[in-house]
Amino acid sequence: MSEQMGGDRLRDSFARQSLMTTLGAQMLSHSPGRCQLAAPILPGMRQQHGAGHAGVTFALGDTAAGYAALSMMPEGREVMTAEMKINLMSPALGERLLATGEVVRAGRRLVVVRAEVAAERAGERVTVAILQGTMIPVDLP
Amino acid sequence: MSEQMGGDRLRDSFARQSLMTTLGAQMLSHSPGRCQLAAPILPGMRQQHGAGHAGVTFALGDTAAGYAALSMMPEGREVMTAEMKINLMSPALGERLLATGEVVRAGRRLVVVRAEVAAERAGERVTVAILQGTMIPVDLP
Amino acid sequence: MSEQMGGDRLRDSFARQSLMTTLGAQMLSHSPGRCQLAAPILPGMRQQHGAGHAGVTFALGDTAAGYAALSMMPEGREVMTAEMKINLMSPALGERLLATGEVVRAGRRLVVVRAEVAAERAGERVTVAILQGTMIPVDLP
Amino acid sequence: MSEQMGGDRLRDSFARQSLMTTLGAQMLSHSPGRCQLAAPILPGMRQQHGAGHAGVTFALGDTAAGYAALSMMPEGREVMTAEMKINLMSPALGERLLATGEVVRAGRRLVVVRAEVAAERAGERVTVAILQGTMIPVDLP
Repeated sequence: MSEQMGGDRLRDSFARQSLMTTLGAQMLSHSPGRCQLAAPILPGMRQQHGAGHAGVTFALGDTAAGYAALSMMPEGREVMTAEMKINLMSPALGERLLATGEVVRAGRRLVVVRAEVAAERAGERVTVAILQGTMIPVDLP
Repeated sequence: MSEQMGGDRLRDSFARQSLMTTLGAQMLSHSPGRCQLAAPILPGMRQQHGAGHAGVTFALGDTAAGYAALSMMPEGREVMTAEMKINLMSPALGERLLATGEVVRAGRRLVVVRAEVAAERAGERVTVAILQGTMIPVDLP
Repeated sequence: MSEQMGGDRLRDSFARQSLMTTLGAQMLSHSPGRCQLAAPILPGMRQQHGAGHAGVTFALGDTAAGYAALSMMPEGREVMTAEMKINLMSPALGERLLATGEVVRAGRRLVVVRAEVAAERAGERVTVAILQGTMIPVDLP
Repeated sequence: MSEQMGGDRLRDSFARQSLMTTLGAQMLSHSPGRCQLAAPILPGMRQQHGAGHAGVTFALGDTAAGYAALSMMPEGREVMTAEMKINLMSPALGERLLATGEVVRAGRRLVVVRAEVAAERAGERVTVAILQGTMIPVDLP
């Protein structure tokens, strides 16, 4: 879906996710089968040693994957996460997190997705986590 | 670890997780190999249709599992999530979420954990998600 | 489905899985939402140190979970594995493996399942692995 | 590790996995952080409708990922699968399966891996499954 055409249902949906607002997350870009988000690591979003909480990393990766999947859906359909698996590889330290979701296989009944979350720190990018999971298409309520 | 003895390093650590404070989460109870958390589904923690965001469900389940694992660690050790898998079964709707973590196997190098997250709604409890994953013991910094 | 009534479509389907025959696997029992299999750890099914291969442990756990799911399906429907996650906790050593599958949630579109695989060794039972995943109902071809 | 130098501990280890022999699997190639296997879909390795069993797809993907991880280990060390997640996307139909494993992050304590399994059918290649998981380094016994 072009970001220029006919409004932008991905951005409209994203704007309605209050957790994304609370996280200060933005949708940087999307294209068919792909979506990228960014969010600062806010003071209120940390684990016991001050790194970003795994739940925040998960939320961003899962959401990027979800919008990557939504980008492949026809009008009137959206997606829900059926299941998601995350491997955490580095602490979420730095100025912001970048989450990139992609569709591996868009089936009629299941959409298999992947995501990667990276931390930007002093101009360097470190992979924090990778995710693999399944989105399920549903009719818009 | 008894909750009555020698302070409570689980609750101390939990209190330092700013995300848990932001979520309004409380540690209801813990015992060796088990931990239960609760949190309201706050207005700022939702997905596009007003249910609790999968990232919040994950954060609570992962954290309950992590403290279940920590309850089995000797002094001076803590745990980090290496990987976690969540199956989402129902929307997170209701007054609050209850997350129960348990240790399946506490090895020297890896701790295998499970968690369940339920939503309380009008006096009923609905299972929202189940999680299965791995915590890795680390020395306290 | 009762094992006594009207033939036994679980056992009929199981008998058509040539891998189960090759593994020497048997269906010990099934009841609604539950299925138990057993198989010896054959000489040709091992990893490099002589323990049962993780692929065999997975195959048994996945199959037990699949038949647990099938036990909840109406006539004319069956299930396929959409995704499955395994945590391996002990080497598969001993006389035989026991795999127990159970349904956590049987939805119309997705069936969430769990399984446990144990090894029997000198009269003791050791948990080798736990699995969590998703079966998808499909029409019989 | 070069395949030309000092024997080939990956191939030596692979040759000791009796399951790989039973499956008719071959190691096609390996390089640091990468390994590719192939196996026919043998008559004795099928599910109830004649496609390759998910357990076989898993076994090949897991093993390819394991040898990708082993390729990064120093002498005297090997790896074991701690956990692995598979998303199955298409039935395993065709002449043979190709499994490609790769290392995403080789840590001192954990090695995060991915694999893809494809089926070759009439000259075309279809992705059957993707895997994501964790290998744990251990000392050789």
